[in-house]
Amino acid sequence: MILRGLMPEGLEVRSALVTGGAGFIGSHVVDALLERGVAVRIIDDFSTGFRQFVNPSAELLEANLLDFDAIRPAFVGVDLVLHLAANADVRHGLLQPRKDLEQNLLVTHHVLEAMRAEGVSRIAFSSTGAVYGDAAVLPTPEDAPFPVQTSLYGASKVAAEALLSAYAHGYGFRSSIFRFVSMLGPRYTHGHVFDFWRKLKADPRRLEVLGDGKQQKSYLHVKDCVRALLLAVERQREPVGILNIGHDGWLSVNESIAIICQQLAVSPALTYTGGDRGWVGDAPKILLDTQRLRALGWAPTVAMPAAIIETLQFLEANPYCGARDARGAAR
Amino acid sequence: MILRGLMPEGLEVRSALVTGGAGFIGSHVVDALLERGVAVRIIDDFSTGFRQFVNPSAELLEANLLDFDAIRPAFVGVDLVLHLAANADVRHGLLQPRKDLEQNLLVTHHVLEAMRAEGVSRIAFSSTGAVYGDAAVLPTPEDAPFPVQTSLYGASKVAAEALLSAYAHGYGFRSSIFRFVSMLGPRYTHGHVFDFWRKLKADPRRLEVLGDGKQQKSYLHVKDCVRALLLAVERQREPVGILNIGHDGWLSVNESIAIICQQLAVSPALTYTGGDRGWVGDAPKILLDTQRLRALGWAPTVAMPAAIIETLQFLEANPYCGARDARGAAR
Repeated sequence: MILRGLMPEGLEVRSALVTGGAGFIGSHVVDALLERGVAVRIIDDFSTGFRQFVNPSAELLEANLLDFDAIRPAFVGVDLVLHLAANADVRHGLLQPRKDLEQNLLVTHHVLEAMRAEGVSRIAFSSTGAVYGDAAVLPTPEDAPFPVQTSLYGASKVAAEALLSAYAHGYGFRSSIFRFVSMLGPRYTHGHVFDFWRKLKADPRRLEVLGDGKQQKSYLHVKDCVRALLLAVERQREPVGILNIGHDGWLSVNESIAIICQQLAVSPALTYTGGDRGWVGDAPKILLDTQRLRALGWAPTVAMPAAIIETLQFLEANPYCGARDARGAAR
Repeated sequence: MILRGLMPEGLEVRSALVTGGAGFIGSHVVDALLERGVAVRIIDDFSTGFRQFVNPSAELLEANLLDFDAIRPAFVGVDLVLHLAANADVRHGLLQPRKDLEQNLLVTHHVLEAMRAEGVSRIAFSSTGAVYGDAAVLPTPEDAPFPVQTSLYGASKVAAEALLSAYAHGYGFRSSIFRFVSMLGPRYTHGHVFDFWRKLKADPRRLEVLGDGKQQKSYLHVKDCVRALLLAVERQREPVGILNIGHDGWLSVNESIAIICQQLAVSPALTYTGGDRGWVGDAPKILLDTQRLRALGWAPTVAMPAAIIETLQFLEANPYCGARDARGAAR
């Protein structure tokens, strides 16, 4: 057990539950916990996760987190819950406004209630830089001015954050909230690099870009993310910890496209749908202030262009990942 | 029709729907709208509202807002929704953690979806200064540092705010979000003045005070609140408007008690439960910055001590209001 001192009482973390442990980030968290000698249980319904990502040393419960009775037993005897299951399809929220609410908020409520029922009080949660909306300050610190939500995804995540904080104050939970930028790396299966890759595989001669291509976003390699997350969970002593996890730079969408085209050795004609954002609710600029995280001694180890290239290499080597769209549907 | 220019297209507000229109603040909003010549429909389930508060000139639908099919017809032909129905029992959230989520968040989602289904796009929503948690800045402005929620009530309200904002950005809604201090005045039926009044009616010789009595809170007369709300709705042109509604001063709990005891002509022995707050999740200091509201030309007209006295006079004259507790249960 390398994760020491995680619990308020000084208990070690011997056993952890990872929701969404078959997903992109969740599966890397599972691997990292197992490497540190922590016993890991996974809940996943494979709506967006992949069986290929599941570490065979973990215990797997295949269940929908909306089914409280089905998931509750998985919380018995667990020291720490890492709640990474989510609807990560940021772009299509407006097509089904109940989906973000159910899968990001009600599911989180079920997780918190299952913890309370089984006496588990330590939780880490994957939130998002999208909670800052169109951020008034860049890079955006954790205590930026009270944001106005611009997407159902961001709204559902800020609502889940609020629940975690209220449970920390009301029930003595220790809640760790992480606001992620877009993550890249192996097992990446949705987002703009994925979309561009798939479009270029279908037709390398042309590429349609949502917006004007000038949107600027920060990206981080998933291994740097997981290292940051576990470090912060280990160090946190306060009831509520809120931490940005991201790189200290950003790339424009056009810069990403240049890297992708070079790596795939294609020269598509670019067309733009226009406007300053990719879709309604898309924040044109995302750059998080990571001073709090860096004060823990963390720094990113993978540059953004290298993370994009590694992502493409993974997608090329694992074509099954392209066989589902961002909404989890088979194609 | 005195409310003009409310709609983005310059439409007048001819017809409004008030959820919680049989409640304390909602019933005053109904009265004010009717006075201005607006046709008013009410949805209320009388879980905390009173039939005595319902203006007979309004159309009443008695229904639970969780029942989407029952409430949807009430949204047909409405120009503006004033969503004031809520679980206002701030203190007991921890006893039933699903209640705030259902009655403040899921209900709001139903209201927004019923609006979308019936082509209504203008909504005003009663949020709360509790969304600032233990505010880092006093008086607290609308763009205070991103707060950490300390109560399930605050969490559910900030989550509902987030949904309103996301619907404004995603579906072209015009959303007005109002963060209230504690309101006082006629039809007041919960909160600390109510609690103290009932305790002193039961036993005027002693009074138990939650916390140390030094908590400082801002209060506003409900008529000043309703005037502010309608003024702001009328003036708003942006998709999302966020506005504090409160007084520019505050009273300590001990000061409130002195006013109450003088008015009731009692001299109870005071005992304190201790600690700097009344209950878990109670913010010991609430004072909202109202510069945005004052810039519209609004100012409060009733001083806080006078509002307390008028509240007591109402409770004395309407003893049926003391016959239910804050959770809506008969006593």
